Amino acid sequence: MGPVYLDWAASAPPDPEVLHSISATAASFFANPSAVHGEGHRAEKLLEDSRSRLAGVLDCGPQQIVFTSGGTEANNMVLFSLLQPSPVSGSTAASSLSRPGLGPERRRRIVLSGLEHASVYEPAMALGRHGYEVILVPAEADGRVDPQRMLASVDEHTCLVALMLVNNETGAIQPVREVARALGRRREAGGKVHLHCDAVQGFGKISIRPKELGVDSLSLSAHKIAGPRGIGALYLKRADRSGFLYVGGGQERGRRPGTENLPGAHGLALSAERAAAGLERNYGHAQALMSELVQELRRLGGAVFVPACRGADRFDGQGFSPYILNVAFPPIPGEVLVRVLEEEEGYLISTGSACSSRKKQRFRIHESMGVSREVASSTVRISIGALTEPQDLRGLVSALGRRVPQLRRVAVR
Amino acid sequence: MGPVYLDWAASAPPDPEVLHSISATAASFFANPSAVHGEGHRAEKLLEDSRSRLAGVLDCGPQQIVFTSGGTEANNMVLFSLLQPSPVSGSTAASSLSRPGLGPERRRRIVLSGLEHASVYEPAMALGRHGYEVILVPAEADGRVDPQRMLASVDEHTCLVALMLVNNETGAIQPVREVARALGRRREAGGKVHLHCDAVQGFGKISIRPKELGVDSLSLSAHKIAGPRGIGALYLKRADRSGFLYVGGGQERGRRPGTENLPGAHGLALSAERAAAGLERNYGHAQALMSELVQELRRLGGAVFVPACRGADRFDGQGFSPYILNVAFPPIPGEVLVRVLEEEEGYLISTGSACSSRKKQRFRIHESMGVSREVASSTVRISIGALTEPQDLRGLVSALGRRVPQLRRVAVR
Repeated sequence: MGPVYLDWAASAPPDPEVLHSISATAASFFANPSAVHGEGHRAEKLLEDSRSRLAGVLDCGPQQIVFTSGGTEANNMVLFSLLQPSPVSGSTAASSLSRPGLGPERRRRIVLSGLEHASVYEPAMALGRHGYEVILVPAEADGRVDPQRMLASVDEHTCLVALMLVNNETGAIQPVREVARALGRRREAGGKVHLHCDAVQGFGKISIRPKELGVDSLSLSAHKIAGPRGIGALYLKRADRSGFLYVGGGQERGRRPGTENLPGAHGLALSAERAAAGLERNYGHAQALMSELVQELRRLGGAVFVPACRGADRFDGQGFSPYILNVAFPPIPGEVLVRVLEEEEGYLISTGSACSSRKKQRFRIHESMGVSREVASSTVRISIGALTEPQDLRGLVSALGRRVPQLRRVAVR
Repeated sequence: MGPVYLDWAASAPPDPEVLHSISATAASFFANPSAVHGEGHRAEKLLEDSRSRLAGVLDCGPQQIVFTSGGTEANNMVLFSLLQPSPVSGSTAASSLSRPGLGPERRRRIVLSGLEHASVYEPAMALGRHGYEVILVPAEADGRVDPQRMLASVDEHTCLVALMLVNNETGAIQPVREVARALGRRREAGGKVHLHCDAVQGFGKISIRPKELGVDSLSLSAHKIAGPRGIGALYLKRADRSGFLYVGGGQERGRRPGTENLPGAHGLALSAERAAAGLERNYGHAQALMSELVQELRRLGGAVFVPACRGADRFDGQGFSPYILNVAFPPIPGEVLVRVLEEEEGYLISTGSACSSRKKQRFRIHESMGVSREVASSTVRISIGALTEPQDLRGLVSALGRRVPQLRRVAVR
């Protein structure tokens, strides 16, 4: 028996039926969807069918979906490309490359939460070096951004606000709808602020309707929901926005060139539908598992939950994804705990976001929540999925019960 | 029996063994390669193994390979990202976003052949709108760029030269090595010109060693060689060049962020190895097929070869990829011929590059070679692969023999 996988937030084990269907699609729809012959049209039809199915899951129009190579690309597209003077409807993709604000004379403001993933944070920092003013709104102690605090940073020069849906380290669900509503009121008063939502950790796990959320764009990824690697999508409220990073053959209505990854798009649509169909059942399952896990960890003693509210008496988990838990056993360093649990006990957990694992800013998210460096460096992330069983987590708690006291003695020596 | 597929240059039917291996990899190496646990390391190891295997095929170092979502992204990376004031060794990816020449005061020159694919041409045009001076060097009547003519356009302000390896419309092999040598001599004299080669249509079909070619970067794609969609690679002579389009989690040494498409990278490496192993055999096969096809088409009468030299007496095919043929039967419009051959005869050919099929610049390549608009609008592209059989092409020629005279009568009426 292999190790118990509890790092679903980094990447989910792919659904065998989705893998099979991707292979079958690759084999029978191999023509280039842009080709003018019948096989090309068949491929194009399946591509558009995949787009419509994904749009169905998101309750939006197919023209509002742009397929990308993943969540990172989708996030980058918005930050680097939507900051245009005006929507470039009808123009060629290439002509809309122009970006404003590249000089201090056209300084614009970007407001983002301090909790954003590297693929939102890093492009924002890059734009900061191009003369944009970047405001990072720290999270509160409960792991959530205060919408009022975020909105207080939005001034008349603000062009973009970015707030993720589910934080990838803690699972804290962010007040995207509240921020959207307040921005909507500003928009009525003449302001033009684009609200982007990185929904990669929420997609397929909590119900997402971009229109209901009120966002202007939303990014998602297939591999987090048991779909294939190398495919994701960007929802664009205004389908005519030329959000793009690069130019070429005019695919995806000029918004994202390159021969379409048809098996990937099909796999994304299929895994999105399957996740949507099982959403409530899986959510209930995860909630029950997570609730028991938190109880057991509390019983164990010495666990510091991040944010702290998650370990409080009678806390019901409200406001958190039940798929992700962040917890520390100070002074045991997170890496040590991860290694020992894997090597000695056969449990795979992580120190945090895989995308931040080699970053200097490893504690950026925790710092934003005001977590001390001591606790932050001890945190580990336990993330679960539809295939996680109660005994997996009970076994993990037993392992922690054995290892934590030993490691503590070593750590304090 | 389905139609006979003769549009391999648009996309090749995937190798079933490669598809199977990709699925198996997706199922057993699903952990995030950036994860710190053992399953993450196993995935990372396979990723680096795939990189080494692809590097082995190209006879370069693994650190010189950056995995991308395809050829279009690889080409865009070079055009948008390598135009930096100086190599940004050791800096964070994000800090090297700065691009020079965005104002007329820092006007720089880009020189590219008039034959380039949309994914090189369009970014160049976009840079043109940002103050770069873009020189398009037309092709000669033989479908090749004259290296002397190309070099005459390279001045002391030139930062980039782009010349593809195999033209995707005509199969004409371009004098990349000659241009590289001449630029090398200039470099010794202090010039700094980056030579990029779009090798998408040559990769896996003719032997490619970037070091021998003398290029600074080279792009390739998996789906053209019976590999998977959504994966390609960029070879970078200087591994420390931060060629990137977007920023995030620091993957691919900060050169291309996003959770790695491990099954795709594995599939690219595998299909590259298989193509390399069968290269000579397949090349000989294609050469024999193409030689017979050209003879038969000549016998048919009325075929206009593009470029004309390809249909000349005793022409041996030297300088052309035997996998691609461009030919016209004026005044029959290319689209009409494609449609009739498919619907009435069951042969799938194309009017040209799928990526240009919806472009206004559909005849850009033919115009660059000095082909008249009348002939250009009649051209069709026949492209073959390892699975093409002699009877496929004989059948195509018979079909042309039946249809061309009929269609001509309609066209001239």
